Amino acid sequence: MSWNGFGRVFRFTTWGESHGPAIGAVVDGCPPGIALSEADIQPWLDRRRPGQSRFTTQRREPDEVRILSGVFEGRTTGTPISLMIENVDQRSKDYSEVANAYRPGHADYAYDAKYGFRDHRGGGRSSARETASRVAAGAVARLVIPQVRVRAWVEAIGGDAIDFQQFDDAEIDRNPFFCPDAEAARRWEGLVDDARKRGSSLGAVVACEATGVPAGWGAPLYAKLDSELAAACMGVNAVKGVEIGDGFAAAASSGEANADPMRSGPDGPVFLANHAGGIAGGISTGQPIRLRVAFKPTSSILTPVETVTRGGADAEIATKGRHDPCVGIRGVPVIEAMVTLVLADQALLHRAQCG
Amino acid sequence: MSWNGFGRVFRFTTWGESHGPAIGAVVDGCPPGIALSEADIQPWLDRRRPGQSRFTTQRREPDEVRILSGVFEGRTTGTPISLMIENVDQRSKDYSEVANAYRPGHADYAYDAKYGFRDHRGGGRSSARETASRVAAGAVARLVIPQVRVRAWVEAIGGDAIDFQQFDDAEIDRNPFFCPDAEAARRWEGLVDDARKRGSSLGAVVACEATGVPAGWGAPLYAKLDSELAAACMGVNAVKGVEIGDGFAAAASSGEANADPMRSGPDGPVFLANHAGGIAGGISTGQPIRLRVAFKPTSSILTPVETVTRGGADAEIATKGRHDPCVGIRGVPVIEAMVTLVLADQALLHRAQCG
Amino acid sequence: MSWNGFGRVFRFTTWGESHGPAIGAVVDGCPPGIALSEADIQPWLDRRRPGQSRFTTQRREPDEVRILSGVFEGRTTGTPISLMIENVDQRSKDYSEVANAYRPGHADYAYDAKYGFRDHRGGGRSSARETASRVAAGAVARLVIPQVRVRAWVEAIGGDAIDFQQFDDAEIDRNPFFCPDAEAARRWEGLVDDARKRGSSLGAVVACEATGVPAGWGAPLYAKLDSELAAACMGVNAVKGVEIGDGFAAAASSGEANADPMRSGPDGPVFLANHAGGIAGGISTGQPIRLRVAFKPTSSILTPVETVTRGGADAEIATKGRHDPCVGIRGVPVIEAMVTLVLADQALLHRAQCG
Amino acid sequence: MSWNGFGRVFRFTTWGESHGPAIGAVVDGCPPGIALSEADIQPWLDRRRPGQSRFTTQRREPDEVRILSGVFEGRTTGTPISLMIENVDQRSKDYSEVANAYRPGHADYAYDAKYGFRDHRGGGRSSARETASRVAAGAVARLVIPQVRVRAWVEAIGGDAIDFQQFDDAEIDRNPFFCPDAEAARRWEGLVDDARKRGSSLGAVVACEATGVPAGWGAPLYAKLDSELAAACMGVNAVKGVEIGDGFAAAASSGEANADPMRSGPDGPVFLANHAGGIAGGISTGQPIRLRVAFKPTSSILTPVETVTRGGADAEIATKGRHDPCVGIRGVPVIEAMVTLVLADQALLHRAQCG
Repeated sequence: MSWNGFGRVFRFTTWGESHGPAIGAVVDGCPPGIALSEADIQPWLDRRRPGQSRFTTQRREPDEVRILSGVFEGRTTGTPISLMIENVDQRSKDYSEVANAYRPGHADYAYDAKYGFRDHRGGGRSSARETASRVAAGAVARLVIPQVRVRAWVEAIGGDAIDFQQFDDAEIDRNPFFCPDAEAARRWEGLVDDARKRGSSLGAVVACEATGVPAGWGAPLYAKLDSELAAACMGVNAVKGVEIGDGFAAAASSGEANADPMRSGPDGPVFLANHAGGIAGGISTGQPIRLRVAFKPTSSILTPVETVTRGGADAEIATKGRHDPCVGIRGVPVIEAMVTLVLADQALLHRAQCG
Repeated sequence: MSWNGFGRVFRFTTWGESHGPAIGAVVDGCPPGIALSEADIQPWLDRRRPGQSRFTTQRREPDEVRILSGVFEGRTTGTPISLMIENVDQRSKDYSEVANAYRPGHADYAYDAKYGFRDHRGGGRSSARETASRVAAGAVARLVIPQVRVRAWVEAIGGDAIDFQQFDDAEIDRNPFFCPDAEAARRWEGLVDDARKRGSSLGAVVACEATGVPAGWGAPLYAKLDSELAAACMGVNAVKGVEIGDGFAAAASSGEANADPMRSGPDGPVFLANHAGGIAGGISTGQPIRLRVAFKPTSSILTPVETVTRGGADAEIATKGRHDPCVGIRGVPVIEAMVTLVLADQALLHRAQCG
Repeated sequence: MSWNGFGRVFRFTTWGESHGPAIGAVVDGCPPGIALSEADIQPWLDRRRPGQSRFTTQRREPDEVRILSGVFEGRTTGTPISLMIENVDQRSKDYSEVANAYRPGHADYAYDAKYGFRDHRGGGRSSARETASRVAAGAVARLVIPQVRVRAWVEAIGGDAIDFQQFDDAEIDRNPFFCPDAEAARRWEGLVDDARKRGSSLGAVVACEATGVPAGWGAPLYAKLDSELAAACMGVNAVKGVEIGDGFAAAASSGEANADPMRSGPDGPVFLANHAGGIAGGISTGQPIRLRVAFKPTSSILTPVETVTRGGADAEIATKGRHDPCVGIRGVPVIEAMVTLVLADQALLHRAQCG
Repeated sequence: MSWNGFGRVFRFTTWGESHGPAIGAVVDGCPPGIALSEADIQPWLDRRRPGQSRFTTQRREPDEVRILSGVFEGRTTGTPISLMIENVDQRSKDYSEVANAYRPGHADYAYDAKYGFRDHRGGGRSSARETASRVAAGAVARLVIPQVRVRAWVEAIGGDAIDFQQFDDAEIDRNPFFCPDAEAARRWEGLVDDARKRGSSLGAVVACEATGVPAGWGAPLYAKLDSELAAACMGVNAVKGVEIGDGFAAAASSGEANADPMRSGPDGPVFLANHAGGIAGGISTGQPIRLRVAFKPTSSILTPVETVTRGGADAEIATKGRHDPCVGIRGVPVIEAMVTLVLADQALLHRAQCG
């Protein structure tokens, strides 16, 4: 029930600020006997790591994870797994202006209103840097449900969407946008470059699919699988919308068009469609879980915006620092992590109640 | 952390099935000394009550709530408030067919896959009937935060949206669609009638606004206000999407267009826009909280759909029973209740940590 | 995390006051497919029922339980089980004096200090009547772990202890004291009668043993089995002490005397002693779980005690009403229920993490 | 609801093993604006530190705490406070024998039975070393409720109790036993030396008092103050019993002897006794909170004890390593920490519900 933890029986708690000495996560409730080393986590952190292309923040963080507990002789012991990532490339001087004036769209004003006080360096706790902890925890979760494959990608940037006919899973790892459509990736180079040069930023839609989830996961009514996924994704920085399956398109549909008809198959029922995104009544149906997430444009931009100071005076603010021109891009590994964390938790919850 | 409870310090747990003797909710953590009687709850239940127009299910339930505990001499005592609503108009015979064949889009198959067993009468626990318990609990939550006004309405049915120029708050209570646009309400009569007659159903978009929420509510990072709202709304039957503020439109926007510029005002900062829906960094900003929710079309329809039986044979199913042609309509009081419940919980959580 | 619920995955929430219309419990997280009817619960409630001998309160309550949800065709469905017991024999007029003056040792003053307000009728929520809800929930828990036998008894009343040489399990159900020593039971008749006639009351020690618990239950470090049992028992009205195994006697012992030596046996290790009460490192060892609980004397007594009124004046109070001369006696089925509830929860938690 | 966290709104999670690189705690829910630095925590860790006298383990750990997050410019920010203590003086070779044979009374067998696997070095997660994390978290909790003074001491070792007539609070800090009776401290030197030389160990009783707690803290019925304290203390390594107020002595008492009579006073009611230990109905009464805790003798002893090996063969085990001859002594700062953590949590919970 803590403010900074997530999950019910497979649970993680994160800590750390953008410009503190380190960030980290404590993963609690992991089953024992799972082979785990830093090498299982590092590749996922590397996917999210900043500074890998000109389309993400130029902060250079090695993001090297250390496992401080919970593993003995290469296997999990069932006790808490403490993961730590040191912060290396902080430049706190960049943030002097932010200390006094609020960046519109950012958490600055709200944190001051809540706590009367905030660590302004790099956004402090509200920085997207915290999501590295989520990715590290998510890498552990993957090992809990090895039968499940969770895969996310960018589906649109600044309103420019991919062509689903061109969808190529392998392409996702070949371009700096996690874009499954090579042609769209080329267009986005110009689009994001242009935004960056203008001191602007762009929003994005990230889609995620989980295959290999058996029918029966999810805990109605108040830990429904879709509800848990929505909470997990909406809690990621800059996310403002979540859809399961057809989402808002279903709201414009009719009962017969939106039904996912079933036919018998050799290994149980076969669905002829997946409008529901693999979840009915809050429980997985055995179809792929599908969801889409809306990331707003990065709110820290060079273009000056009207604001007020802590003292209450009108001002303009242009956020210098080093920021992602499209924070949704690096949201891909984060959404994957959150979806995996929910599924691992629900897998264990299901086992608790239903054996 | 239970399956059927929601909330952190202002918490409720619901119980009951569509065709059992009763349904109910236990509200725990309510502050003491609040004036409360059945008369404070009943009007909200009446708004949600079935059978009030031909556009909702014809099941006739008086939905009379009884307070069984937690109130003494007309005031809450700080102990659990038990709310019970008896089921009166069950007709279980209508559901014989559902016992053996799965309604596509409904929870039938998923419940069987999870529990190996289900109460098929009227959908059992997965029935929208359960939402009456939410509305009853939400009515208590309203009294905890009397300074907040939570108001929802239907914004679109089957893809036909209201004209925001015609928005009239008073109109919401004047038509059977909770529609703020009188002209749209007239169109929807034909639309929904037509769907009903065809044995079809329609999806809907419900919007909700909460005014009077001060800056500072919300508990980052894993109980962010937007995350809690998303969980609360996505957990309502038939909901497949949630947007905070501009939601998916923000994903197609740019940093400067999506910023909510601030100017100084006599009573603190004034925002010149509200793309963020009143939440930044997971914390309320003092602006109105705004969200939109996508309801899929009712999955129980008279139009036959391909399915399989429990025994694994191909079949067709046409769901007779009595169903809402557009379940999103009665979703309005439910979304209001869920939003109110989240806000009351966050109000108390904020007081716990920040005094 | 609610105030009135207990358990982590097998969880129950209780509601209701001594003189309200009813009391009840909602059991959440129960596995599906378990045969359950009122007949499985009623015998345990009957054991706890008041008015069965002159050694307990003369309030006459049938304590008939109704199952309002969660069971279909005689089996649990995996959804919340709502249990309700109507209050029948309230006599609120008995409590007029209590409304104005605090009974020392009772919750009266503390509730007023906390809530500024209280339901004084029969102690309201703080009444031992609430424990009927615990017993009903505990009866469901028994069915979740049928391999476990939980058995409690009274070991001492007012300092007069049983002779362990005379321990006879069958005797527990033959006398009104749940006393395993027939001779002690005879002595206690005089002891308790005498206290009752003097307008006094007596404390008691209740012991409990759970056999059939396999090695491995318990969730270190902060949901240790002994910690959960202590919380469960110390939360019962009038309990002021809990010991696991040798308890305080272990504090006067030495390492070698307190060790439970092990020898190999045909079915795994055999322990040669059980000072630890079946729990080591917070995890069950496969030996019987053993604990002892101290009940203070009933604080509602006819003997006048110095007190103050709500208005702050000195006064004397003699509590009339109908009270147990030794509340520990009826604590026996309550402690059994709480221990069973903890074990069922830990059984499911263990399955969640360790398969 | 995690396995390794404690608390409801002021919550901490610990991680780390005896022979891993470090141990630590994440404190979540701490109010913002509290002055905090390592200097506020270190003195409490120093009190618990091993190797300070010949009466505790000879392991030499500096136990230097680092604050890794949650503090900015010397004040708490309301975000998670990550505390880390590096392990310096591990000698894993000492534990080779423990890897194969179970120490009776220790967690060895139970961990293997639960997890199928364990980190045997120094007891791994089950080591008393983990309690340093509790003490560090407890030091933060003290700052949340500065009006409360929590003070513990040793009341008996191996059955030899202090003389309450000689109680001198200042003496507690003057001898290596946290003993308030100088004469008893002198006796214990011989007692503990003797046990140590014999390769034995001794149990102890620790008492704790919290003054300055206002009336009204505690959350009935399932987060009663006494229940929370019992859970917190019973979860500490080697604890086997907890009493609130008179505890088991109350079970041998009568209603009038056990009452705490009240008289009116200038600042509200005055109690004439404190049998209840400052808690009635699960809520603080404003009197000092008093409790006693039973520590069993250290189970790791040099005296050989019968046991079995992992392979199932009979064996004898004499635990070499470096162990406390009386683990209850260093339990004093740990019990203080746990009591403080519970009180801080309940202070915030009370504020949440009752303002």
